[in-house]
Amino acid sequence: MSTTAEKIFLLRTKMLHLGIDAFIIPGSDPHMSEYTAAHWKKREFISGFTGSAGTVVVLVEEAGLWTDSRYYLQAEEELAGSGITLFKASEPDTPDYVDWIGERLNPGSKIAFEAEVFSIDAARKLSKKYKHYGITLDPNQTLLDDIWEGRPPLPENTIFVHETKYAGLSRKEKVENIRKKMRQQDASHYIITALDEIAWTLNLRGNDVPYNPVFHAYLIISLDAVYLFIDTHKISASIGKVLAEDDITVHLYTDIFKWIKDMPVESGLLFDPRTTNTKIYSLVPKEVIKIEKASIVQDLKGVKNQTEQEGFRKAMIKDGVAMVKFLHWLQNNVAKKTVTELSAAHQLKKFRAENENFVGESFGAISGFAAHGAIVHYSVSPETDATLTPDNFYLIDSGGQYHEGTTDITRTIHLGTPSAQQKSDYTMVLKGNIALDTTSFPQGTRGVHLDILARKPLWSKGLNYGHGTGHGVGCFLNVHEGPQSIRPNDNGVAFEKGMVTSNEPGLYRTGQYGIRIENLLLTIESNQSEFGEFLKFETLTLCPIDLKPIEPSLLTHEEKEWLNNYHQKVYDTLSPFLNDELKQWLQEHTKEIN
Amino acid sequence: MSTTAEKIFLLRTKMLHLGIDAFIIPGSDPHMSEYTAAHWKKREFISGFTGSAGTVVVLVEEAGLWTDSRYYLQAEEELAGSGITLFKASEPDTPDYVDWIGERLNPGSKIAFEAEVFSIDAARKLSKKYKHYGITLDPNQTLLDDIWEGRPPLPENTIFVHETKYAGLSRKEKVENIRKKMRQQDASHYIITALDEIAWTLNLRGNDVPYNPVFHAYLIISLDAVYLFIDTHKISASIGKVLAEDDITVHLYTDIFKWIKDMPVESGLLFDPRTTNTKIYSLVPKEVIKIEKASIVQDLKGVKNQTEQEGFRKAMIKDGVAMVKFLHWLQNNVAKKTVTELSAAHQLKKFRAENENFVGESFGAISGFAAHGAIVHYSVSPETDATLTPDNFYLIDSGGQYHEGTTDITRTIHLGTPSAQQKSDYTMVLKGNIALDTTSFPQGTRGVHLDILARKPLWSKGLNYGHGTGHGVGCFLNVHEGPQSIRPNDNGVAFEKGMVTSNEPGLYRTGQYGIRIENLLLTIESNQSEFGEFLKFETLTLCPIDLKPIEPSLLTHEEKEWLNNYHQKVYDTLSPFLNDELKQWLQEHTKEIN
Repeated sequence: MSTTAEKIFLLRTKMLHLGIDAFIIPGSDPHMSEYTAAHWKKREFISGFTGSAGTVVVLVEEAGLWTDSRYYLQAEEELAGSGITLFKASEPDTPDYVDWIGERLNPGSKIAFEAEVFSIDAARKLSKKYKHYGITLDPNQTLLDDIWEGRPPLPENTIFVHETKYAGLSRKEKVENIRKKMRQQDASHYIITALDEIAWTLNLRGNDVPYNPVFHAYLIISLDAVYLFIDTHKISASIGKVLAEDDITVHLYTDIFKWIKDMPVESGLLFDPRTTNTKIYSLVPKEVIKIEKASIVQDLKGVKNQTEQEGFRKAMIKDGVAMVKFLHWLQNNVAKKTVTELSAAHQLKKFRAENENFVGESFGAISGFAAHGAIVHYSVSPETDATLTPDNFYLIDSGGQYHEGTTDITRTIHLGTPSAQQKSDYTMVLKGNIALDTTSFPQGTRGVHLDILARKPLWSKGLNYGHGTGHGVGCFLNVHEGPQSIRPNDNGVAFEKGMVTSNEPGLYRTGQYGIRIENLLLTIESNQSEFGEFLKFETLTLCPIDLKPIEPSLLTHEEKEWLNNYHQKVYDTLSPFLNDELKQWLQEHTKEIN
Repeated sequence: MSTTAEKIFLLRTKMLHLGIDAFIIPGSDPHMSEYTAAHWKKREFISGFTGSAGTVVVLVEEAGLWTDSRYYLQAEEELAGSGITLFKASEPDTPDYVDWIGERLNPGSKIAFEAEVFSIDAARKLSKKYKHYGITLDPNQTLLDDIWEGRPPLPENTIFVHETKYAGLSRKEKVENIRKKMRQQDASHYIITALDEIAWTLNLRGNDVPYNPVFHAYLIISLDAVYLFIDTHKISASIGKVLAEDDITVHLYTDIFKWIKDMPVESGLLFDPRTTNTKIYSLVPKEVIKIEKASIVQDLKGVKNQTEQEGFRKAMIKDGVAMVKFLHWLQNNVAKKTVTELSAAHQLKKFRAENENFVGESFGAISGFAAHGAIVHYSVSPETDATLTPDNFYLIDSGGQYHEGTTDITRTIHLGTPSAQQKSDYTMVLKGNIALDTTSFPQGTRGVHLDILARKPLWSKGLNYGHGTGHGVGCFLNVHEGPQSIRPNDNGVAFEKGMVTSNEPGLYRTGQYGIRIENLLLTIESNQSEFGEFLKFETLTLCPIDLKPIEPSLLTHEEKEWLNNYHQKVYDTLSPFLNDELKQWLQEHTKEIN
């Protein structure tokens, strides 16, 4: 296998030959997935950088990687000797790669990229910026395809049915609901390219991507037909039969481009410019009316139906049992034998796997002891693996995929005797979690409004955290999904009954420790009055919150009451599934405080 | 004087003659002022509707007035017999007047308006919408000028100097600060059209508009000259001398248009499209580079310097003394003799006028007893004037203009024995006020983030209010100013040290009563840490908050402590300025609760 420098040399040879002055390689796949299959890891191939976010730009004499603060250390190591400069995208003084290129190229230069892995929105942003520089864009270059020897093929994992008893609605019902929305928007055709949206619509699941139970495909719904574009190897005879029964025709994955090119010109095509790739967009016949909207399925999928809500509750019991087993195991083993960040995460996965209908982790567990806990997206590796000792915080952020639902939970536990500062920090994070959990709010309230509730107790001590407070969670689907979120930026999306959102305030003291407490919340009805309809949250996650680091004098009466009620519910719900030893442990760890 | 129907007939005759199918008459003046001089009340002239917000559209066979919920009752009465249909703009089913016109006119029709009273932003919105209808716009029609007999002339009130001892910075210093910002934005010329921005820049004040101490003018600042366009009658010899000393040349008010038309073509002209009128915009030579930005002065003016901050504190003492006299008077007189909404507001104005440097009210007092208090912008008139009795809430929202600063305060007092619901409602509003008052927050926090703090206690009981929580306040200038606000909509403006903002949560039970508690807040530094710089608020307003309607069991220990500390500060600061009787009254009304 060639070195990074050798690969870049080959790429530059091709660039010079084709008159290309800059080549942009993002980390995305044609579906704008958060996690991508090995086949699409072009940015990783060309740079050696394995992080989940980052863009490489290769010029004729320079090259750069832009990534965020999660990956500075890792990128520095992985880029060593490559000739690629690391640009720390989170630092205020770091130039945007768009500006950086613009400053280096002369008017008349050409920038190339691969349209299939650029969203319409991203490509538009590029073209809008480069107009000012008198630079042209060539979106049709797949320069790496010839260089990449031994490129992994597209995954060919088979898909399986997500049964209606878990999905709540049949695929026929879902397609009809989608068509209702299409008619409201005068759309005769609707192209769905996001993998979780396709999986949700068809009540199918797959294994093409780590952690997300999705499969590579495109889907087009018209008012009277459904076209699925997929590697036909993935479709078993029984699934083929099921799809045929529902009048869904199956086509080759790569035939999507031909289909779009030849689509009926008297159409109104609805698509989401954030997730649809530029290659598809460029093939849409001129006569077709383009309807650019937030994806219908994103919104439908975000609101969980009664069956899915019940599924979440069931998954939470299983996940809670696994967490109780894990926390009990941790407490018993940290002092006795060597427990490391890796071995702990492995043990938790084992406990989760004891559950019926467990399919896998919903993301790579963040298992961080002491200073590692302060790295928000810490990804433990054999090189960084630390041994847990009883003198600091241990943060474990993890989740499971069950047929009934997806979980995402963070607990921070103290393995010894917490200091006064540790107790104060931990209690402030807990207060924020409780404040968000217990609020009610009128219809129309968005995440930008609620975000402060989780931060205010920290702010009162001059503390804060640099990430969002909450994200949507799929139902046996992606652990991160839209449309709602809880962040300081306004996404324009109001909370609706049935949405599942994380509540995860934290505090990170660099070099010392990290604290995060995360539960999932279901939006439910609160009450109705002359002042409108009000919503509130139901706490879905069932797992004790470590009592040891709490400073009770910093909690109000109502906060203690919330904690005691929550722990009572955790005990009542989980204890029937535990043996006597675990039951006793749980009783001890859910005891009332005052 | 003609009737409304007669005036509209005359207008339609002119419209037919000129081939105009629709004429739009907004309520604004050429400076996009909130309050306008009588000379500019064209919408009021043509329709008879005297409210502060509303737009009239006259078609050949129909006419409509669009106004918001504050004015439904008033508009119905004032439009009776006029042939103008009332459109309730706050109702979700009411068509936008833009759509309404579009549905009534055929392609090829012409809509006219007067460019001088349309902001660039508003005119653009029109032209963007009407493009879809194949309708042309004619912005150069002043159709009402010939019809309006006895139109009041432009006001000719003299202007006066706002001394540097109040302003903190000389006009020379302000102009230099503005030029620094102009250079950063590559602007050689900057046109200021908002009246409060001109008054602030020049340290001058006037009387052309009710409540706002401003004067009609335009101002152009170049990198080496300042041009003031103003009715020269307004400039006394001494002011003329002062301006000449500062190299400010004075030109006729109407000469602005000629100046713009003939301006140097090698210029970069900076203007704010929200406040600059379309007539000016249309005259800018094509060669001039147009720099559209939020007005520099709006941002500079929003941050009060040390002198202005000290001025606010002094104004608050005077205003607090007037409020104490008023509340004492109210309590002593309501039972004994007839006190009405009008007579109470009159009495409060009298007490304010006893203060040195009092110039006038900062807005027409909202003086609402019982159900009238539930009308958010209630404007008492002899026809609605209600007598205050001891069985309900009385809401008084008022403010004063002092040379040192502008005040805006709301207190709600119960004149008898509050019911349990009244106590709960009042206490929830108070809790919201305290929550916003006591928060600290990191740099970068915007009003959209803080708004929920004032609402959350109400939300917890299924209650809410339909207006924003806070607005900026000028220093001896407009009581409503930007750039910051505290509202559920994101304005993109972060809080800065020195901003003065109102904190005014409320609750309105239609037909029963209204509650609002309003203090002004100064943004000050809180603390700095590895987590960034934090800000907090200093409460500027000094006036007791009625203790009678408080339900102490609904307040936390911290909230009671805040109230007791606030009342202690009110007593300590105001009592030196009160006679023994008032001192005793104040002591009683600021006593500790627990």
